Amino acid sequence: MKHKITFLPDNVTVDVDDSTNLFKAVKAAGLYVLSSCGGKGNCGKCKVIIKEGKIESEKSRSFLTAEEAGRGYALACVSQVKSGLTVEIPPESRMQAKHKIATGANTEELLRLMKQAGGCLESRINRIYLEISQPTIDDNIADLERVRRALDGAGFNAGHLHLNYMVLSKLPHVLREGKWKVTASVFSMGEVLEVLDIYAGDATKSRYGAAVDIGTTTIVVYLVDMSNGHVVGTASTYNSQTKCGDDVITRIVYATERNGLKELQALAVDNIGAMLSELAEKHNVSPGMIDYIVVAGNTTMEHLFYGIDPANIREEPYIPAATFFPLIRGKSVGLQIHPQAIIYSMPNVASYVGGDITAGVLVSQIHRQDPVSLFIDIGTNGEIVLGNKEWLVTAACSAGPAFEGSGIKFGMRAMEGAIEEVEIDPLTFEVNYRVIGDTKPIGICGSGMIDALAEMYLNGVIDQKGKIREEIKSKRIRRGESGLEFVLSWRVESAVNKEIVITEVDLDNLIRAKAAIYAGFATLLSHMGMTFNDIQKLYIAGGFGRYIDVERAITIGMLPDMPVNKFQFLGNTSIMGAYYALLCDRLRHEAEEIAKKMTYIELSVSRSFMDEYMSALFLPHTNLDAFPTVKKEMKRGRNWYKPE
Amino acid sequence: MKHKITFLPDNVTVDVDDSTNLFKAVKAAGLYVLSSCGGKGNCGKCKVIIKEGKIESEKSRSFLTAEEAGRGYALACVSQVKSGLTVEIPPESRMQAKHKIATGANTEELLRLMKQAGGCLESRINRIYLEISQPTIDDNIADLERVRRALDGAGFNAGHLHLNYMVLSKLPHVLREGKWKVTASVFSMGEVLEVLDIYAGDATKSRYGAAVDIGTTTIVVYLVDMSNGHVVGTASTYNSQTKCGDDVITRIVYATERNGLKELQALAVDNIGAMLSELAEKHNVSPGMIDYIVVAGNTTMEHLFYGIDPANIREEPYIPAATFFPLIRGKSVGLQIHPQAIIYSMPNVASYVGGDITAGVLVSQIHRQDPVSLFIDIGTNGEIVLGNKEWLVTAACSAGPAFEGSGIKFGMRAMEGAIEEVEIDPLTFEVNYRVIGDTKPIGICGSGMIDALAEMYLNGVIDQKGKIREEIKSKRIRRGESGLEFVLSWRVESAVNKEIVITEVDLDNLIRAKAAIYAGFATLLSHMGMTFNDIQKLYIAGGFGRYIDVERAITIGMLPDMPVNKFQFLGNTSIMGAYYALLCDRLRHEAEEIAKKMTYIELSVSRSFMDEYMSALFLPHTNLDAFPTVKKEMKRGRNWYKPE
Repeated sequence: MKHKITFLPDNVTVDVDDSTNLFKAVKAAGLYVLSSCGGKGNCGKCKVIIKEGKIESEKSRSFLTAEEAGRGYALACVSQVKSGLTVEIPPESRMQAKHKIATGANTEELLRLMKQAGGCLESRINRIYLEISQPTIDDNIADLERVRRALDGAGFNAGHLHLNYMVLSKLPHVLREGKWKVTASVFSMGEVLEVLDIYAGDATKSRYGAAVDIGTTTIVVYLVDMSNGHVVGTASTYNSQTKCGDDVITRIVYATERNGLKELQALAVDNIGAMLSELAEKHNVSPGMIDYIVVAGNTTMEHLFYGIDPANIREEPYIPAATFFPLIRGKSVGLQIHPQAIIYSMPNVASYVGGDITAGVLVSQIHRQDPVSLFIDIGTNGEIVLGNKEWLVTAACSAGPAFEGSGIKFGMRAMEGAIEEVEIDPLTFEVNYRVIGDTKPIGICGSGMIDALAEMYLNGVIDQKGKIREEIKSKRIRRGESGLEFVLSWRVESAVNKEIVITEVDLDNLIRAKAAIYAGFATLLSHMGMTFNDIQKLYIAGGFGRYIDVERAITIGMLPDMPVNKFQFLGNTSIMGAYYALLCDRLRHEAEEIAKKMTYIELSVSRSFMDEYMSALFLPHTNLDAFPTVKKEMKRGRNWYKPE
Repeated sequence: MKHKITFLPDNVTVDVDDSTNLFKAVKAAGLYVLSSCGGKGNCGKCKVIIKEGKIESEKSRSFLTAEEAGRGYALACVSQVKSGLTVEIPPESRMQAKHKIATGANTEELLRLMKQAGGCLESRINRIYLEISQPTIDDNIADLERVRRALDGAGFNAGHLHLNYMVLSKLPHVLREGKWKVTASVFSMGEVLEVLDIYAGDATKSRYGAAVDIGTTTIVVYLVDMSNGHVVGTASTYNSQTKCGDDVITRIVYATERNGLKELQALAVDNIGAMLSELAEKHNVSPGMIDYIVVAGNTTMEHLFYGIDPANIREEPYIPAATFFPLIRGKSVGLQIHPQAIIYSMPNVASYVGGDITAGVLVSQIHRQDPVSLFIDIGTNGEIVLGNKEWLVTAACSAGPAFEGSGIKFGMRAMEGAIEEVEIDPLTFEVNYRVIGDTKPIGICGSGMIDALAEMYLNGVIDQKGKIREEIKSKRIRRGESGLEFVLSWRVESAVNKEIVITEVDLDNLIRAKAAIYAGFATLLSHMGMTFNDIQKLYIAGGFGRYIDVERAITIGMLPDMPVNKFQFLGNTSIMGAYYALLCDRLRHEAEEIAKKMTYIELSVSRSFMDEYMSALFLPHTNLDAFPTVKKEMKRGRNWYKPE
């Protein structure tokens, strides 16, 4: 028996079998519904409203308020279709695409930075124009031997020459078509020189590459003109794997399920392929001219992109299948680019410090400096690197996806409708907030959470442990379904027709997240017998990083209390590092050296980390002396609520 | 409209469209009919007998006797099917499979010879058993890095480690399945080390390779146990490409026609694949355990095997696409062996001196000796090498396929029904002959032709120019449809119900063929300022070579008049050389050095060759002093017919 389901507001219809899971039906309709757990009934994000028809649902209640239940809300992933349906996907469950992911591409700036980092336009793949002597009866060596000789003459050691037999099969024709003037696309790997392709005439100019950042949440692509290093165009998209889970752990679990690995791989490849096609078409580039791709991602993302089982990443002792991935070809993963295109992935360090971090260090240049610096990429995990030109240590503190909205009642990503700034009036506890896109709010994003936490703390709404002071007389402080909560936005102000609140559970999750980050810094430092005073710079990378208000982050004890001028935002260093490595083989090699040099410290089994973490589960920290600025701010009595 | 055709004596039926070419219908029925020209109406070999039904045929007459025409003979390739037919493929048009191609495999002897040539059991692909330390939280490098470290520990430089991502994707499972005891199959190319596959536990023993000789006429396969060098089994077959033409030139022409190249490639690959499967099954070897194949063939055969257009081989200045072919994988050509199996082809020297000759020199060892020797592989072409450890020169004298039966009225290959020895009574001119398989004769093969030519000459049936002395009173000497002819076998004695004769046209073709070979020797020698007296040994290789009676070949002036003990038969040096290179990488490398060292001399444009050739168009030679033995034999008056 088939049922017709109409999804609003898109008005998309799909026919499904009786008892089909509604979450799968959303996917089948080509639509998205938010989900952190990948459809396992654990996150309560995939709320939909049943407007008409019948479902069977379990467990929904625990995530829904009585009022929501009364209004027809249900969790898609625990609901079975039992009749024809009309289903609304409400704003808070939708992926808002209007807030464009910043790609950060500025050709002149990127090129300048790359050159500043010691780079140049010398890629691993070269186009060599060859004028080959025409064969005669006295000089009758084979076509391939002529190419070899010409390459030798051009300064390439063609002793170990390799080429795919498809290239060999076109060689006789191309040589004669080009009247013995041809362009070889060559790739070096150790002593082996591979001719990737051969073109008649001078084809040295029309060569393109792509840098790709495969983030857990977003994927960014730069299409690059390899002849001059210019970024021809950029594109970005949410990683479609998100529908199989929000974070790497959920995806690893998904990958181990039947066909899950293939599905996840296909999703990433399709995302990248679609962006490449779009960019190529838009900028009039033949996809076959794209013959080099450098990918940066965390270790799990790289495994999934290659279709390699990441299962062991998740289980102690946390072993990835590979950290240095072998080169693969465009056709192996099914990208519609040059079939022999080389795909290189930035080297990973360990299961939870990936190629994106190697790329980040390359961009930060901390590995070239005398003074010791810190680097952090704040995302789902906070990956931290400490070091200088002599040594590098690294760790991943599993901050969890709280700042990305997961586990936070009204948490969401930084997109349209997200509260991104919060101010609380010290006297009235009234809330001023700013919403991305200047619309009515749907929820709150990471920077908004940091703001809210800082403001609530400084204004005494919460105590050092993050507990809401129930004794405060304010209608914004109230007891909700999951305990005490603070109302950020009243129902009439919100786009979701209900109060947007921060609960004590949310606060607890946020404090755990910030504590993990701080403890990561502190553990690495103590591991090296250093303190924050020894740090010259703290580089912050990552999409979320760019929106952080450093002072607020210090207030809550997420970032160390150092002078603000010691913090530097680097933007998306993952894509930047991939871009560097794409254009300059020396920098690619440098990235490998960086990865080899980094000593990975597994925090999950570190006694020292646990201690640091416990101490950091306070605002800003158990040891307030470590946060003199915050202490001063508090002492200044800046509207400090003292109930005593 | 469809017509049913029944082919006798196999009684195979096929339905074809009206006007289908009968030659194609034979192919469609999965049967063979001899053809030298590949079905172009130029050779007159594909005779069939129309027993019932109607055809339309052109040009057949010029190749058929009036009597044959009367008996329903037609040439298949110029006939169109016009009704249902019953067609007999007569014995003379059939490929006789009963005469097994000698594979020459004798494991002990082969191993002894390889070792004598400086070889050892050190293949390019190694199976390495690795005991890898189990990961812990303190030693948590990635799976692939553990393998790399273990390989480094085993003495392999795994700096540039490469592997197909299918291997990487099984790696985590195999490591754990084998409890960190695994066997890696590794292949070295310059600095790059590739892991071809990985197996749980100790899999060092179960490894197989294959040596393949792709001859224009026959294909031979040795299945080799790589752990001890033993030839597990051998197989051989006629090269199915033969149905597209007898010799390399016809095949090149065929390859340039629509889809011809793909068809020829598939035919060779299918032949090899079928033999490998058969051998693997027979000897209980899993085809996936075959991971290395070394192929030897002439330059055209290697082009066709790789599917590379050989067109330029045929046209001045005779340029092959490649002489050193890049390595390819089993799956690229579609062989059902290990998908990553390496296929290596013996290096070629030029368009008409191929990998089979490089293999031959490797086996002959002339490149290691002080004294100068000659090497010849007598087949369709006679490829000759002259040299010693200092230098090597080589040439191909296009002897033509006369000795293989082409262009000879009753010519055929050395198979059942072929006259292989001939004796003529000096007084009565009665003929004694020996037939392969001791049956009634169908035709005459190469060794029989040499015998016949020598006997006819020594007994005065023909003069120095190969003209039949019409004045001799013998019923065996008569005027046939194409001029004078000599009857070898009377109709009643023959299996084809007609006289088997040698015509003056045949004699002319044979003399041209033998002259080309002799002129090849002479030209190379004069090129180096040497004479036959400077030659220590003359090595004869090739399937045909083994049946030559050296004294008879000297008599007709095909081989130089040197002491018989200076001649040495080597057998099928092509497959032997492939076997050497398969087992011993040093010898494979030596073959490449040989190929590089050989100076190729293009005889087709050599003035000196033309002179030598003209002088050799006599029996045994214009300069009888160069053949003292023959001169003596003639002077001894051994039944010498002197009409004057």
